[in-house]
Amino acid sequence: MDTKKILAAYKKQGARIETKTRVKLKGKSDFSLWYTPGVGVASLHLAAHPEDARKMSVKKNSVVVVSDGSAVLGLGNIGPYGALPVMEGKALIFKVKADIDAWPIVLDTHDPEEIIKTVKAIAPAFGGINLEDIAAPQCFEIERRLVEELDIPVMHDDQHGTAIVVLAGLTNAAKVVKKDMKKLKVVVSGAGAAGTAVAKLLVAAGIRDVVVLDRAGVIHTGRAGLNAHKAELAALTNPRKVAGDLAEAMRGADAFVGVSGKGVLGPEHVKIMASRGIVFALANPDPEILPEPAKRAGATVVATGRSDFPNQINNALVFPGIFRGALDKGVKKITEATKLRAARALAALVAKPSPAKIIPDLLDPRVTKAVARAVR
Amino acid sequence: MDTKKILAAYKKQGARIETKTRVKLKGKSDFSLWYTPGVGVASLHLAAHPEDARKMSVKKNSVVVVSDGSAVLGLGNIGPYGALPVMEGKALIFKVKADIDAWPIVLDTHDPEEIIKTVKAIAPAFGGINLEDIAAPQCFEIERRLVEELDIPVMHDDQHGTAIVVLAGLTNAAKVVKKDMKKLKVVVSGAGAAGTAVAKLLVAAGIRDVVVLDRAGVIHTGRAGLNAHKAELAALTNPRKVAGDLAEAMRGADAFVGVSGKGVLGPEHVKIMASRGIVFALANPDPEILPEPAKRAGATVVATGRSDFPNQINNALVFPGIFRGALDKGVKKITEATKLRAARALAALVAKPSPAKIIPDLLDPRVTKAVARAVR
Repeated sequence: MDTKKILAAYKKQGARIETKTRVKLKGKSDFSLWYTPGVGVASLHLAAHPEDARKMSVKKNSVVVVSDGSAVLGLGNIGPYGALPVMEGKALIFKVKADIDAWPIVLDTHDPEEIIKTVKAIAPAFGGINLEDIAAPQCFEIERRLVEELDIPVMHDDQHGTAIVVLAGLTNAAKVVKKDMKKLKVVVSGAGAAGTAVAKLLVAAGIRDVVVLDRAGVIHTGRAGLNAHKAELAALTNPRKVAGDLAEAMRGADAFVGVSGKGVLGPEHVKIMASRGIVFALANPDPEILPEPAKRAGATVVATGRSDFPNQINNALVFPGIFRGALDKGVKKITEATKLRAARALAALVAKPSPAKIIPDLLDPRVTKAVARAVR
Repeated sequence: MDTKKILAAYKKQGARIETKTRVKLKGKSDFSLWYTPGVGVASLHLAAHPEDARKMSVKKNSVVVVSDGSAVLGLGNIGPYGALPVMEGKALIFKVKADIDAWPIVLDTHDPEEIIKTVKAIAPAFGGINLEDIAAPQCFEIERRLVEELDIPVMHDDQHGTAIVVLAGLTNAAKVVKKDMKKLKVVVSGAGAAGTAVAKLLVAAGIRDVVVLDRAGVIHTGRAGLNAHKAELAALTNPRKVAGDLAEAMRGADAFVGVSGKGVLGPEHVKIMASRGIVFALANPDPEILPEPAKRAGATVVATGRSDFPNQINNALVFPGIFRGALDKGVKKITEATKLRAARALAALVAKPSPAKIIPDLLDPRVTKAVARAVR
């Protein structure tokens, strides 16, 4: 479908999500029970027992999908209105994949302290908080503070949803190329929200040789001018002290994970990888390299973020199940252990991984339950 | 239904509202259009044309129902969790009566500047803002600032919804008792959000003799220690310079409007009213006086806020239509003229007012449309 047709479809559609009452409101007695005066009984009870909001209000099953629009898809800082269609789209996925009542909120501020204050202020009515499309490095501090200061699960999906689905894909890709996953040499292109979280989770999964690049090249402890979060990343990764550009990093690498931008990876980079290379070119909508040239250059397993190629590495495989599990079990923090279990559970749904099938399909009905079971 | 049964019903029910998708999400092409990559087209368009969010996103038909829980029903400051059932209940009414997608938000702050900042920050995804159950006098400044600083309709329903429905009821009650409404001597008991707005709208409707009381007695320009909003009220009302207590105000009054508290009005007060008295005892759930004793003491028309007596003066007759009209017509401010028109339209739905029928029923399907037509 071309751009004009897509835009016309959105204009014709209007809202893609609406509310629906879960109680009958026909006669006076319905209004008396579910509105006034009955509602006063529920209000007095929750004033005395706020913890029961999780049992007897919209908080039981609701998630807010919230963004300031500072890093929307691969489109950059396009503001709250630019972010709104994506947040509304995620609310759709939450409903369809996990029967979660998610509401889109976009914030008219980019100030980290304002974002933290606003999300904390609106938190009581929600059972969980999905942060979305907030730029690095602010996203790290915003998430850290909210996780610490709120008593409901908070997850920045660009970070952890991406990291979990990448780890799941890499687990199966390693099987396909018959290599020990923990011994893979992995190059991560991009040190924003996604790249940082991917690198950290791969290290947590036991992969020792992870090399991360940003626009200025390989991140290593000897590089001057690293900000706090990149210095942390440097300390955590790159044990061989690789320095230089992408070509330096790719020489002999077993796997490439691109969460950076269109065309970053050339066939010349794939050619210098170790044999049976793995290429995840996840930039959306235009990947770091297209599957055809990557294969021609020698890659054995190729994945993208797109639905029109095999192996779609998409967060939507993860976030519905993570929040479904957290809501059902009253889990307040999404831990590193949960993320590792979720990745394993997702990978395990592919019985026989092959070059064109390393990750379950978005339409696979088993996905949400499997991920939800990993949350505890 | 007794309190225990009501509480059990809420606990069994869980959430009373949920989300519903308005698009089909079955095959890969649906996901491509309504999620990724299609959503990127909508995002880029709205980044360049934010005004189109009203046409092609959830903003088209959504209202946030927002409270800090500082003045919930007649229950006082019971906090955000105490407020949540009421906000959720209003979201139900919005859907059932006006097909508006309203989402409940309760705020974990009572600071007026924080409330203003938070509501402004979350405004972009909403087509309107229903402020609710925020205590006076903060509610006046909060509403004034939000009306001024946002480009979507903002209405504090405790003020204006109440004022509109009271004026509608009084319009018809005056017909029943065969008096000229503008010449009524009206006593308003309560100078909080509702009482203040009621007094102002009655004056705007041409009723000159309005006397307002707070807990300390009649408000008049000679009273010491009035805060800014009560000084404004004193200047606007009470042309006969009545002073003293409720008995002073009620002597010879034609109508009483109670938005104060249980049992404030005694039969002795009704007995000293002018003949064919009108008593609106609107405190919820326990009115200022019950209909039976009010009638026995001589009142001709009695109304309450409750569904189990005749003449239910309830905001739910107003707010769905106000926002329906504003959303449909792109109206950004709810003006005094709109409120007067809405009250007239609501009153006009009762063809032949009688002592037991001065206001349309909550279940009357004509109500929302009539009020919506008044918004322009």
